[in-house]
Amino acid sequence: MQGSQQQQAYDRGITIFSPDGRLYQVEYAREAVKRGTASIGVRTSEGVVLAVDKRIRSPLMERSSVEKIHKADDHIGIASAGHVADARQLIDYARQHAQINQLRYGEAVGVETLTKEVTDYIQQYTQVGGARPFGVALIIAGVEDGVPRLYETDPSGTPYEWQALAIGADRNDIRSYLEDHYEAEMSLDEGVTLALAALASVNDDALSPESIGVATIAVDDPVLTELSEAEKTTYLEDEGLLADDEDDEESDAEEDGDEDDE
Amino acid sequence: MQGSQQQQAYDRGITIFSPDGRLYQVEYAREAVKRGTASIGVRTSEGVVLAVDKRIRSPLMERSSVEKIHKADDHIGIASAGHVADARQLIDYARQHAQINQLRYGEAVGVETLTKEVTDYIQQYTQVGGARPFGVALIIAGVEDGVPRLYETDPSGTPYEWQALAIGADRNDIRSYLEDHYEAEMSLDEGVTLALAALASVNDDALSPESIGVATIAVDDPVLTELSEAEKTTYLEDEGLLADDEDDEESDAEEDGDEDDE
Amino acid sequence: MQGSQQQQAYDRGITIFSPDGRLYQVEYAREAVKRGTASIGVRTSEGVVLAVDKRIRSPLMERSSVEKIHKADDHIGIASAGHVADARQLIDYARQHAQINQLRYGEAVGVETLTKEVTDYIQQYTQVGGARPFGVALIIAGVEDGVPRLYETDPSGTPYEWQALAIGADRNDIRSYLEDHYEAEMSLDEGVTLALAALASVNDDALSPESIGVATIAVDDPVLTELSEAEKTTYLEDEGLLADDEDDEESDAEEDGDEDDE
Amino acid sequence: MQGSQQQQAYDRGITIFSPDGRLYQVEYAREAVKRGTASIGVRTSEGVVLAVDKRIRSPLMERSSVEKIHKADDHIGIASAGHVADARQLIDYARQHAQINQLRYGEAVGVETLTKEVTDYIQQYTQVGGARPFGVALIIAGVEDGVPRLYETDPSGTPYEWQALAIGADRNDIRSYLEDHYEAEMSLDEGVTLALAALASVNDDALSPESIGVATIAVDDPVLTELSEAEKTTYLEDEGLLADDEDDEESDAEEDGDEDDE
Amino acid sequence: MQGSQQQQAYDRGITIFSPDGRLYQVEYAREAVKRGTASIGVRTSEGVVLAVDKRIRSPLMERSSVEKIHKADDHIGIASAGHVADARQLIDYARQHAQINQLRYGEAVGVETLTKEVTDYIQQYTQVGGARPFGVALIIAGVEDGVPRLYETDPSGTPYEWQALAIGADRNDIRSYLEDHYEAEMSLDEGVTLALAALASVNDDALSPESIGVATIAVDDPVLTELSEAEKTTYLEDEGLLADDEDDEESDAEEDGDEDDE
Amino acid sequence: MQGSQQQQAYDRGITIFSPDGRLYQVEYAREAVKRGTASIGVRTSEGVVLAVDKRIRSPLMERSSVEKIHKADDHIGIASAGHVADARQLIDYARQHAQINQLRYGEAVGVETLTKEVTDYIQQYTQVGGARPFGVALIIAGVEDGVPRLYETDPSGTPYEWQALAIGADRNDIRSYLEDHYEAEMSLDEGVTLALAALASVNDDALSPESIGVATIAVDDPVLTELSEAEKTTYLEDEGLLADDEDDEESDAEEDGDEDDE
Amino acid sequence: MQGSQQQQAYDRGITIFSPDGRLYQVEYAREAVKRGTASIGVRTSEGVVLAVDKRIRSPLMERSSVEKIHKADDHIGIASAGHVADARQLIDYARQHAQINQLRYGEAVGVETLTKEVTDYIQQYTQVGGARPFGVALIIAGVEDGVPRLYETDPSGTPYEWQALAIGADRNDIRSYLEDHYEAEMSLDEGVTLALAALASVNDDALSPESIGVATIAVDDPVLTELSEAEKTTYLEDEGLLADDEDDEESDAEEDGDEDDE
Repeated sequence: MQGSQQQQAYDRGITIFSPDGRLYQVEYAREAVKRGTASIGVRTSEGVVLAVDKRIRSPLMERSSVEKIHKADDHIGIASAGHVADARQLIDYARQHAQINQLRYGEAVGVETLTKEVTDYIQQYTQVGGARPFGVALIIAGVEDGVPRLYETDPSGTPYEWQALAIGADRNDIRSYLEDHYEAEMSLDEGVTLALAALASVNDDALSPESIGVATIAVDDPVLTELSEAEKTTYLEDEGLLADDEDDEESDAEEDGDEDDE
Repeated sequence: MQGSQQQQAYDRGITIFSPDGRLYQVEYAREAVKRGTASIGVRTSEGVVLAVDKRIRSPLMERSSVEKIHKADDHIGIASAGHVADARQLIDYARQHAQINQLRYGEAVGVETLTKEVTDYIQQYTQVGGARPFGVALIIAGVEDGVPRLYETDPSGTPYEWQALAIGADRNDIRSYLEDHYEAEMSLDEGVTLALAALASVNDDALSPESIGVATIAVDDPVLTELSEAEKTTYLEDEGLLADDEDDEESDAEEDGDEDDE
Repeated sequence: MQGSQQQQAYDRGITIFSPDGRLYQVEYAREAVKRGTASIGVRTSEGVVLAVDKRIRSPLMERSSVEKIHKADDHIGIASAGHVADARQLIDYARQHAQINQLRYGEAVGVETLTKEVTDYIQQYTQVGGARPFGVALIIAGVEDGVPRLYETDPSGTPYEWQALAIGADRNDIRSYLEDHYEAEMSLDEGVTLALAALASVNDDALSPESIGVATIAVDDPVLTELSEAEKTTYLEDEGLLADDEDDEESDAEEDGDEDDE
Repeated sequence: MQGSQQQQAYDRGITIFSPDGRLYQVEYAREAVKRGTASIGVRTSEGVVLAVDKRIRSPLMERSSVEKIHKADDHIGIASAGHVADARQLIDYARQHAQINQLRYGEAVGVETLTKEVTDYIQQYTQVGGARPFGVALIIAGVEDGVPRLYETDPSGTPYEWQALAIGADRNDIRSYLEDHYEAEMSLDEGVTLALAALASVNDDALSPESIGVATIAVDDPVLTELSEAEKTTYLEDEGLLADDEDDEESDAEEDGDEDDE
Repeated sequence: MQGSQQQQAYDRGITIFSPDGRLYQVEYAREAVKRGTASIGVRTSEGVVLAVDKRIRSPLMERSSVEKIHKADDHIGIASAGHVADARQLIDYARQHAQINQLRYGEAVGVETLTKEVTDYIQQYTQVGGARPFGVALIIAGVEDGVPRLYETDPSGTPYEWQALAIGADRNDIRSYLEDHYEAEMSLDEGVTLALAALASVNDDALSPESIGVATIAVDDPVLTELSEAEKTTYLEDEGLLADDEDDEESDAEEDGDEDDE
Repeated sequence: MQGSQQQQAYDRGITIFSPDGRLYQVEYAREAVKRGTASIGVRTSEGVVLAVDKRIRSPLMERSSVEKIHKADDHIGIASAGHVADARQLIDYARQHAQINQLRYGEAVGVETLTKEVTDYIQQYTQVGGARPFGVALIIAGVEDGVPRLYETDPSGTPYEWQALAIGADRNDIRSYLEDHYEAEMSLDEGVTLALAALASVNDDALSPESIGVATIAVDDPVLTELSEAEKTTYLEDEGLLADDEDDEESDAEEDGDEDDE
Repeated sequence: MQGSQQQQAYDRGITIFSPDGRLYQVEYAREAVKRGTASIGVRTSEGVVLAVDKRIRSPLMERSSVEKIHKADDHIGIASAGHVADARQLIDYARQHAQINQLRYGEAVGVETLTKEVTDYIQQYTQVGGARPFGVALIIAGVEDGVPRLYETDPSGTPYEWQALAIGADRNDIRSYLEDHYEAEMSLDEGVTLALAALASVNDDALSPESIGVATIAVDDPVLTELSEAEKTTYLEDEGLLADDEDDEESDAEEDGDEDDE
């Protein structure tokens, strides 16, 4: 997105609408999301699935420190895409809200309630000056009263509920894949397979188990559970998506912390 | 609306009048409203009707998460058009005010009172710097002492009372339709029919029940009631407005969260 | 008023005088007043008269929601012209001050006292940065100790007392009419007639009763009283000012909320 | 005063000195004073005289509402020139200070003390950002311990003591007249005559009693006393300064509230 | 001093250093000092002398209101040059500090202590944004423990101690004169004579007693004492510096309040 | 990195995203890190190693004052690169947090916990206006529950965990060296050797013991321990990396305090 | 240092990094330091030496008021270079901290501790907007637990420890001299001689005793002691550095208060 002369007149802050009613800074924050590697959410009748691209810049970096799936509460997981440090702020905010809810009402926070708390917080950063919007999108997934729920928050602070979605790099291509293959009555297993296939569809149909993260929350045991390397390998093998070892692990998208290594 | 050189000199914030006494940022916020899908309100002698266009960007998105009709209190509903995250703030504000009124005076808040509380809040964002106006318009509909009331709030913070109105995309075309067909002595049923016909008038005279939302508040049972899919289908069939299944559901207007999927 | 290059150097805020000692933002706020439909005040020996142009944009809009005459206290009415949402703020401020005066001193507030409270409040918005001036003028009319009083507030925060005045669109033409026809010793009836004739003088000498508002405060019964449709019709008929039904009701001036319906 | 390119670089606020050590915004505020109609002060051995030009824009405006002479305390009067709403703020400030002095010390405030309180207040608006200077000059006149005192405050916040002075439009021409004709040992009567003659000297040597205001504070009865129409007429007749009735009352200078009646 | 293009890039406020480490706004404030009429301080073994140029703009202005010598405490006098209203703020600050010192420690404040309090206050206005520097220099003179002290404060907030100095217009020429003629072991009388001769040296070697102010603080009676007109005349006559009556009293420098009388 | 015209439009502060979703000020802060001399961290199975380049500008400067390795807690060391004064702020922050943790929970703070506290603090300086990001990167190394941990914080506020890493000048070249030679199962000794060899690889394969700093935290005795000059010499000799005495000690990178000695 | 076009884009405040990671305002503040006359510190085994250039602008100025050596505590002296008023603020800050330390812990503050308190304070002025950096460098010298310590603070807020150093004008030339002649095992006498010779090296190898200040803090009597004129003369004579009387005392560098005497 190249800023035209006209656009530049209105894109220096969140307190200014453009003549056609747009908030450019919020739109630019969406671009920051696209710079991040992809995250995917799939809702099945048996639970929700989160799958993330967590490729790293160097073999010496600990993959576990590439935080893309976070636990907000036992029954709620959050996957992010975009500015990593911003994501951490929102996830801290979500965790605090979940704890407060637990303390105040003696029950686990609802997925929708939590999502809306977070989006209200995000919205503040799009209307009152002196700060910038959050350059991050979240997928908030969980099970609430036995029902799987799957939400998105975007930099404008709008909450959306989805059956399946992608955020971050290649989000449109992945969404097309999901639209073509999604079935509401999938099992959780099928959901994991769909998520991995969708992610692989923009990666030459091949993934290495280390470079991805997968977590599920099952309706009958609503606890966020990350898949082990072995489990991920099995899924990939079963679908013929397992990458060769020498596969070049190079991320198209760059998370926030990526330096331009000159 | 293209910003001319002259206009650009005065449109960077709400603390600056243009030489001809205009507040460009408020006018640009009205453009943000026009970017949203349409919402319609109709007042009949038996109650008020809210009808909204809630088309979605992807078949995987949950329609229920496209929030266009909100409950402010049992007897008051609010339909919005424009920046979704902004709408959520105003609706929260309205709900809180309704609750406070209930607690403080032991009675339900009046529709006009509530509207003016909201518009006073909106006005603050058009005079004191450091923020931007709300990029959203609301239709506040309710029954007050047995009388149906129908109000509009706009980004300047001005309250208007209407017999029937439209906000958002195609608002002028829809208003023309309403002006041509509105009768003060309609039944609530006729009100629903009018609202749907008006909405269809800018959609090739065809609507699918899923892509719209309809709610009513009846004088004799003043509780906000949303119509079921079946009820909406019946109304549309009766009027010959029911769209074929393969109808391309593409929104002309884009709500706030719409990305430009390049 | 077109902003010249020279002018543009000094018109971006209220904290800057121009080299010739002008405050452009206050002058631009006066332009906002001229964009509003006209309001007229006439002081007679029997009381004061307020007459306002309240044409509406659509037949579906409730005329009663076009707020142009407001009650500040039983014995004081306020007519406004200009930015509607701004007017509401000033009127709320005036009402609160009237109530506080009643509570604190056990007596009704004086018209001059109230006017000066309001203008002091307006002045703050012309000297200290971070906000814009109020884009509205008020006519504050009332009876105080048996004496009719008629005041104007303008966006600079200056109070004026008048025998008869107009604010808003066509204010100069209406004032000329008033200067030519005003008599200090008129009855209240004659005052109403003068106000309507003055308003009609800039409307092809024809008015429809619905499109105007008239209120009086009589010396011998100092309570703000709005004229009924029948009463207005009678006055207009008596003066031959009654418009035909098919009269095109189109306002030259646009109140704040008017959209440019493209 | 036309702002040169060089000047424009330093005249946008009070927190910036120009390279030659000037504060342009304070100088521009002095221009605002010159836009106001003239006020004159004369000190005699018997007391002080204030005379003001109070021409009005329309015969329907109440002359009494053209506030140019104000009572700060029984023994102190203030005449203003320039931005009317600003003058009101300073006069309120002076009145409050006079009352506080009375309450705190049980005695009437001194003229010099009051003047310096006011100028200290004015100075704040010339050094700390976020506001503009006061666009008004004051003549503060009074009798203190049997001694007549006559002070000026200007927009920089500097107090001056004078034997006779003028502020506002034509101030230099009037001052020349005063310098030529002032005698320290005048009676109060002679002081009034001098003030009126000085004012008339820039008005074709003719004044109408309604268009001027005159007040005196006598040493032997130190109470601000405004002259009646009859008294003013007598003075003018005695000096041959009485204007014919048809005199065109048009103010060269424009007080703050003057609109450009296009 | 003409602001070059390069200079203009760095001279808009006190929070910006220029590339060569200068604070232009402080330098411009020094120019404001030069716009003021001169003040002179001389330290002798018998006490300190302050002499000031207090020419006035109009014969009607009270010379006593041209405040150039101020009493900070019985034993400390302050002469100023530059922006008069700013000087008043600093002198008030100094007086308050002197009183607080008296109250808190039961003894008169020291001259150096007082000077440093004032310069610390001045420094704040050169580092933290939102205000401008003080456009004034002070000579703080006094006797402390039997020792005469003579200090200068400048707009940067730096304190200097002098044997003899000048501030304001022609300060360099007067300083040269002082450097050529100053003797440390002068009597107070000789100090007065030196100060007047130095002042006269930039005024065609002639002064009128009314247009100057002189004050002394003697070691053996440390109280600020202003010379009477007769005393000043005697000094001037003795030195052959007395101006003829018709001398044109026109100040080269202009104090802050000087208008450009067009 | 040269700022293009396009880039300059968006790089003046942290509250503005560029059209492609970048935060230029954070990227520029990363450049400030690269201006600092290199720091290296290596994690072995026996503990963690920190090695820093601490060349000095003058032989008269105390090497010990070139602070590059800091103790956050007994078991946690921090090496920095970039703006030295900024580093000191973050290290103070880390120390305080470590102490608070000790006091509040009675146990030593975890390495990851501490890192995330610090990055959360850094993030605040990248979103809310009125300040700039921290121009420094940190390596936070420690032993936690017997496990060696090695983290990086960057100016965006993102935490990363590494097996081995470099920050500051030549960071990419050093990282390449580390990637080529790192073994997870090294001894602490081998870790020191690797770190020194990596540092030497960008310094003509020669280092002098005075110009480097090395510290270790061993798993079996988790206390930050700095190597003595003798120990460093031994390591360098063993690897043939010891520089000749006459080696020119000139830093390619310049820490914050470096002046351009012209 | 001439600000290039590119540089000017990033040098208007401390909240902006340049694309290559520099903080221009901090660099410009270093230029302000260079504008000040030189100060020198030398650490010997017997104590520390401070030597300063205190030439004055006029023979009438009291040399004692050219504050270049300050006492922070009995055992700690501070020499400054650069903006004098800024130096006073930091020295006040240091003194207060020293007193607080004494009160709180019952012992004298350490030299390093005090230095770091001061640099932390300085750093705040380089990161948070609304102010400018301090335009001053300090040499903080003292004896702590019998050990002589010598520190520098610079405008970035970085503390350095030195064996010998110079700040202010000609700092690089003086440092070269010090590097060539410094011996760690000097006596205090030799330290004074070295400091004076270094200062003379940039002044045609000649100094007058009045134009310099010298102070020492001995290990065996750790109290800041200023040398008398006689002592300074002896040192200069012994080294053949004593200037002739007619030596032109003209400072190359200009302290903050220097006016451009046109």
